Amino acid sequence: MDDLALRLAIGDLNAAYADCIDDDRLEDWPDFFVENCRYLITDRQSHEAGLRHGIIYAASKGMLTDRVMAMRKANIFEPHRYRHIVGPPQIGRVADGIAVRIMHNGDSQLFATGRYLDKIAVVEVPFRFVERLVILDSRKVDTLLVLPL
Amino acid sequence: MDDLALRLAIGDLNAAYADCIDDDRLEDWPDFFVENCRYLITDRQSHEAGLRHGIIYAASKGMLTDRVMAMRKANIFEPHRYRHIVGPPQIGRVADGIAVRIMHNGDSQLFATGRYLDKIAVVEVPFRFVERLVILDSRKVDTLLVLPL
Amino acid sequence: MDDLALRLAIGDLNAAYADCIDDDRLEDWPDFFVENCRYLITDRQSHEAGLRHGIIYAASKGMLTDRVMAMRKANIFEPHRYRHIVGPPQIGRVADGIAVRIMHNGDSQLFATGRYLDKIAVVEVPFRFVERLVILDSRKVDTLLVLPL
Repeated sequence: MDDLALRLAIGDLNAAYADCIDDDRLEDWPDFFVENCRYLITDRQSHEAGLRHGIIYAASKGMLTDRVMAMRKANIFEPHRYRHIVGPPQIGRVADGIAVRIMHNGDSQLFATGRYLDKIAVVEVPFRFVERLVILDSRKVDTLLVLPL
Repeated sequence: MDDLALRLAIGDLNAAYADCIDDDRLEDWPDFFVENCRYLITDRQSHEAGLRHGIIYAASKGMLTDRVMAMRKANIFEPHRYRHIVGPPQIGRVADGIAVRIMHNGDSQLFATGRYLDKIAVVEVPFRFVERLVILDSRKVDTLLVLPL
Repeated sequence: MDDLALRLAIGDLNAAYADCIDDDRLEDWPDFFVENCRYLITDRQSHEAGLRHGIIYAASKGMLTDRVMAMRKANIFEPHRYRHIVGPPQIGRVADGIAVRIMHNGDSQLFATGRYLDKIAVVEVPFRFVERLVILDSRKVDTLLVLPL
């Protein structure tokens, strides 16, 4: 698989991932990861300081599934959706992105900006994330961070 | 035409379409559509409910032209421009996008986010829209929605 | 080099340029330009009126380097970062983009939207800008415009 085909395939993976969340098909979200995955949402300063904890942390696909189930059961948060805009991926680099949050009342806000720093298993199709670090630009994260990014 | 060439050509179409509106060349806008086109701006919930009306609706290229002429003549709205940011297209899927509105006084606001759901005639160059559904994420649409999206 | 390879290479150039600024590696920023370059940040109306001055103006790589040194020494502005989201380039056209500003306190704001209008030397790798015009959509520019765009 040449560089161009790889880029396109990773671009498609990112688009499918964003769609899954933006379309509220959260039950499908863990399938974007391998079993022994790592998923972390953190901020730039914590990441640069080498801190390995984060706002959301999961060390296996099972933990991602648990998280979705908890979200669906608890469901005490104000309904909201995201709209992800993800830039083109760069092999050996990262994809930049913006997430806009649309509240149930219709208000839209610029919610978060940052980077995906990924390790992706590309030996099999579909590609899956071995690690996805979501590095937010800002430390000030809304307490309403319930949906994955 | 292979898949990659098709993607690039549709990406170019989306870019030219956005430029046309963002550059205020609205008279050229209907040319992006075939004669028997359908253009609809609606919101996600109405779309999912199968409602076929929308905030803006046109069932032919002539209706698009009429709309532009009415806009130019009436011209009672506060001058504004858009800046579209449209993600890469996916064949069999949709392009996500953000529109930022820049008011005459210089204020910029995140105006709308959503998806283009398109049917495109690709047998002839330039490609033209047979149907373009603009599915906004939010129901709360500013009454100032005068320009097409 | 065919059209597709050229697009990808220019997309990579834009991504590397944005990363350089967003990662606060400003000392590397002048290296994206040839010696006899022109760099200008202006607004759409001034640009259309043919005015050749701008909010920020440099007529050589040396002036860009001076600017970075002045920024680092003065350093009296409130710390902030940008997050650039740049659309795909079009040969013979321009790339659209959004910049989000993240303040030291964590606040994120939609900061600027506009276009890059570039002349790029592509005979050697890495590509370098002969001219980069940053055409902002809005005339209302925050006085805090210290970082390059």
